[in-house]
Amino acid sequence: MTDHAFFMAKAYDQALASYQSGGVPVGSVLVRGGEIVGEGHNQRVQKSDPIAHGEMDCLRRAGRQRSYRDTVIYTTLSPCMMCTGTIILFKIPTVVIGECVNFGGNEQLLRDRGVNVIDLKDPRCIELMARFIRERPDIWNEDIAE
Amino acid sequence: MTDHAFFMAKAYDQALASYQSGGVPVGSVLVRGGEIVGEGHNQRVQKSDPIAHGEMDCLRRAGRQRSYRDTVIYTTLSPCMMCTGTIILFKIPTVVIGECVNFGGNEQLLRDRGVNVIDLKDPRCIELMARFIRERPDIWNEDIAE
Repeated sequence: MTDHAFFMAKAYDQALASYQSGGVPVGSVLVRGGEIVGEGHNQRVQKSDPIAHGEMDCLRRAGRQRSYRDTVIYTTLSPCMMCTGTIILFKIPTVVIGECVNFGGNEQLLRDRGVNVIDLKDPRCIELMARFIRERPDIWNEDIAE
Repeated sequence: MTDHAFFMAKAYDQALASYQSGGVPVGSVLVRGGEIVGEGHNQRVQKSDPIAHGEMDCLRRAGRQRSYRDTVIYTTLSPCMMCTGTIILFKIPTVVIGECVNFGGNEQLLRDRGVNVIDLKDPRCIELMARFIRERPDIWNEDIAE
């Protein structure tokens, strides 16, 4: 298993845990030098926290960092505009996404700002997200402010 | 006192409270129909939370909202790229900023995405932020990932 597949599986575990507790199934892992610095998942339902998308919860749990220039962030779903802005602000050089089939559109903005975007097109990530959107369109639309 | 001056004074109170507890002095207030829905301030120092900029803490404290299309967000300092992305995602139509002297640069991106940006050029906001940057450049640079 490649590093990317290994850490995406960790992000998927976070997404699945969120799904199993009734939440939005997006998970994320922050990695530095092959070690996990933080991991998390969407907390809109679980903590009634509208800013806690998967990537945001992961970065919060990682705590204060002097720099992110030597990190990689993994996320099961292509980043929304909030998470895109955060990745750009924090100068995270690489984002590995599980998929951009169920949601996407900010990949080019990330690339325009110098971020390396790698799409794994992960069938498990696609299937879990599609299932949630089908089952709970109300929560999903709230989460992306649609 | 105009509505904008009134709510910016509330945001300033948040910023000042953060400064007085050793934190980054950026405060924010979310308003709907003349009523405060949420208010907050930067929590990097107080909660070791790197994603809790003033606007983000305010939006978190406001809790889940079905829509932000009828809201105005006030912030003592021009939004960084994270907060800019969040305002765009949440479709908040108007952001009133205290100042963009000490930090700025995302106003045009906000306007390009249809957000109305109003700069109050508030002397108290400018002075408090300048004082903090002078006193704690280490924390300030960490907060904007410089």
